[in-house]
Amino acid sequence: MNANAAKTAISPRREEDFPEWYQQVIRAAELAEPSDVRGCMVIRPWGYGIWENMQRQLDAMFRGTGHRNAYFPLFIPLSYFAKEAEHVEGFAKECAVVTHSRLEADADGKLRPGNPLTEPLVVRPTSETIIGASYAKWVQSYRDLPVLINQWANVVRWEMRPRLFLRTTEFLWQEGHTVHETEAEARAETKQMLDVYERFVRDHLAVPVFSGEKSESERFPGAVQTLSIEAMVQDRRAIQAGTSHFLGQNFARASGIQFQNREGKQEYGWTTSWGMSTRLVGTVVMAHGDDDGVVLPPRIAPTQIVILPITPKEQTRAAVLETCDKVAKQLREMRYVDLPIEVEGDRRDIGGGVKNWEWIKKGVPLRVEIGPRDLEKNSVEVSRRDRGIKTKESIPMEEFVRRAPEILTSIQKNLYDRATKFRDDHTRIIDSKKEFYDFFTPANSEKPEIHGGFALAHWNSSREVEEQIKSDLKVTIRVIPLDDSAEHGECIFTGKPSSRRVVWAKAY
Amino acid sequence: MNANAAKTAISPRREEDFPEWYQQVIRAAELAEPSDVRGCMVIRPWGYGIWENMQRQLDAMFRGTGHRNAYFPLFIPLSYFAKEAEHVEGFAKECAVVTHSRLEADADGKLRPGNPLTEPLVVRPTSETIIGASYAKWVQSYRDLPVLINQWANVVRWEMRPRLFLRTTEFLWQEGHTVHETEAEARAETKQMLDVYERFVRDHLAVPVFSGEKSESERFPGAVQTLSIEAMVQDRRAIQAGTSHFLGQNFARASGIQFQNREGKQEYGWTTSWGMSTRLVGTVVMAHGDDDGVVLPPRIAPTQIVILPITPKEQTRAAVLETCDKVAKQLREMRYVDLPIEVEGDRRDIGGGVKNWEWIKKGVPLRVEIGPRDLEKNSVEVSRRDRGIKTKESIPMEEFVRRAPEILTSIQKNLYDRATKFRDDHTRIIDSKKEFYDFFTPANSEKPEIHGGFALAHWNSSREVEEQIKSDLKVTIRVIPLDDSAEHGECIFTGKPSSRRVVWAKAY
Repeated sequence: MNANAAKTAISPRREEDFPEWYQQVIRAAELAEPSDVRGCMVIRPWGYGIWENMQRQLDAMFRGTGHRNAYFPLFIPLSYFAKEAEHVEGFAKECAVVTHSRLEADADGKLRPGNPLTEPLVVRPTSETIIGASYAKWVQSYRDLPVLINQWANVVRWEMRPRLFLRTTEFLWQEGHTVHETEAEARAETKQMLDVYERFVRDHLAVPVFSGEKSESERFPGAVQTLSIEAMVQDRRAIQAGTSHFLGQNFARASGIQFQNREGKQEYGWTTSWGMSTRLVGTVVMAHGDDDGVVLPPRIAPTQIVILPITPKEQTRAAVLETCDKVAKQLREMRYVDLPIEVEGDRRDIGGGVKNWEWIKKGVPLRVEIGPRDLEKNSVEVSRRDRGIKTKESIPMEEFVRRAPEILTSIQKNLYDRATKFRDDHTRIIDSKKEFYDFFTPANSEKPEIHGGFALAHWNSSREVEEQIKSDLKVTIRVIPLDDSAEHGECIFTGKPSSRRVVWAKAY
Repeated sequence: MNANAAKTAISPRREEDFPEWYQQVIRAAELAEPSDVRGCMVIRPWGYGIWENMQRQLDAMFRGTGHRNAYFPLFIPLSYFAKEAEHVEGFAKECAVVTHSRLEADADGKLRPGNPLTEPLVVRPTSETIIGASYAKWVQSYRDLPVLINQWANVVRWEMRPRLFLRTTEFLWQEGHTVHETEAEARAETKQMLDVYERFVRDHLAVPVFSGEKSESERFPGAVQTLSIEAMVQDRRAIQAGTSHFLGQNFARASGIQFQNREGKQEYGWTTSWGMSTRLVGTVVMAHGDDDGVVLPPRIAPTQIVILPITPKEQTRAAVLETCDKVAKQLREMRYVDLPIEVEGDRRDIGGGVKNWEWIKKGVPLRVEIGPRDLEKNSVEVSRRDRGIKTKESIPMEEFVRRAPEILTSIQKNLYDRATKFRDDHTRIIDSKKEFYDFFTPANSEKPEIHGGFALAHWNSSREVEEQIKSDLKVTIRVIPLDDSAEHGECIFTGKPSSRRVVWAKAY
């Protein structure tokens, strides 16, 4: 550790031990904690508040593109689940299975499962098969199409190596499931939802992404095509932040989703599915957090501004508190991106320093201190979480209230710009196998914990190459870009012709 | 069936067969349907939209009373669940139990549960025990209190006789869980949340309720006191619409929620829990629906106004559609109880009559027809769902837009008044055992399907009497009112002194 480094609120620092920093920063901000149920987490109010904001904003985008929410059963009969062969193979190893419908006491009075079920039920790891069973009933004619439905739900995938938010046995997500009349429409939907995801992550989470198609080996089990957005976080790894799947007629065939087409013939529907999860909360923490804690983009912060009264003397206390309330009230009447500004006045009697650090660790975008001297000057002391934690600015009270939305916008933009610069700084065009291996080998880095990044390199679609690279370096193809900037070249591993560079990285 | 009765959209009518009417009305409105998973339902977009509005509005009331949302695991280790003896006894018979964490193929390639868990997991039927485990960690000192948290979640209680919304194996709900420093504070919280529920059901669902305490035999398993609100629906049965429990120190003791009190001593916390569920959707259907379908209170309708273009001739079609869009846009800019008015323009080419009936069955508060003749007169044809389905009123276009919020308010009030009158008409003060038995005996009613109601009768707190009445008549004590209108008298069953009348009814 650098002896000159200032003491930070979170230990270890990011460059010392990124995975441990991540655990500590989440604990310090009270976002979530592991539960005694293996792999399941408890999402605490501050973490859940972030998720609620994400939900609300994403949900509005789904509505804006014509989708409606619905809710389907948590349990999937084993026989349904088994209908799509690749699908069941992909999920079989991580399924929680309900086998009994009551508890009963044994001879010693000890509780044990009673009343075995005729057919075991799988706790949904994803809902294509159970939703498909309903769609098969609802869809009879081309007039019933498209079906555009989204579900907000919990899902369960048994996780051997859990990590808060990024990989948990139970997680919260949304899953869109649509049925279309034609392949073209379903493909357009798949792409449209990828674009929604990209825009949401960029504009709301302040995180830039690479988007594109997954290689065959990384596809959703049962999909024809999987599109994905990939964010880079501060240890330069990729996080798959959202996926959108074109399912062809595979699941329609498995579930019997058939309709009479315009020519009067029976045809299978064309389906898609797409999802984003509480993993996004972890992505935000890893993308923007610093050595003093979480740093939240204003658009998803549960509280955008916290007001901290400074009350050193009893005789000025009432006046300070009154002013704090007044400023809070004025701020709440302002609008930030069409939303009311969420303001919290923290009146707890636990000492100003303790309080200030709590809010730094929680990542509130703006901290506003108001004390007796500020009252005299009719000003407030403003600290932006995206700047050094000791940087404060004294701003006339009225001016601050007026400018608050603009300052929040500036923080949002600054976080995005910083994340974009970071990503660009650690994205490298690579044209040789040696350079590729060097780039992804920790020993070649000054700080072994943090090395590599995104490599843009030619690849000739060989699955063997993919497997070799994965086994050698734990590096995978994150996406094959969809855009038109196709650039012909040679695969750096095989020398064979390649039509475009793909994005490689280590990933969570 | 009365040969003179007009044909209705729903068959049977309410008075013919209320339970079957309920199934049919839900199907016709596309609110929900049974799934192939026994006891689980699929909540379709129109039904889920109602639930989303309930959630949003109730959630704001929880925030307003200082609560924050969080999320706890779906699975409860068997050992946690067993900690509170009454609790486990109350729920053991309806627990779904996860016993395996993967699927594997047997010799025939048939899938079966693989990898048995060391400790079985119960799918939460309610979360006192799993949330208690977290609270035990979070609460150390009186300074950490109160803990005021709510969770929106799915829960599972194995159901042998399911009924859509009212009784399903999986249902959606909110569960508040709080910890307090003193008994008085916890009791005040229990009562406060009952009041929130009562206000919500009255002002948002337009349903009046009786509120009060449950008798010992109807208490939540493990609670010291259970408060409840009880609505009357149109077959004169009661529906328990929400409950709020004072748990004393029972669950704190079971989970180890201890804190250092102001005197420096270790003490167990005082906890409460309270919940409302998707059962409310069924309550609204049964309370307000008529023989033509669902009738929705405007405050929770997913769409408050539907605009139906009448386009008999091709040459006026464009002008009609344009006007419909203009009116829709103007309406969306209006506010109804601080919310934007949700307006849907139904342009589907399926015939005006079919469309109109669809929206009647779905219960949209206002239907607005606009055709070529309305354009000439610059007016619209307005149908209120709370009036006879053939009653239409022609209103000048601008006036309608201006008055829309007021009309919606009037519909909301009318539904409440109607439900209140119905309840009052079927609530009877009863002072003899014979009258009580007559009141609840179908054979004494002209329409056997619909008889009885709420009986207000004296009772001397005898559990034997309760059991006898339940066994004879399937009638239970719904609540023991809390208010001050205590009236001394004699138990109509035993002749012993009684300090107040209690509310008796058949219930869902």
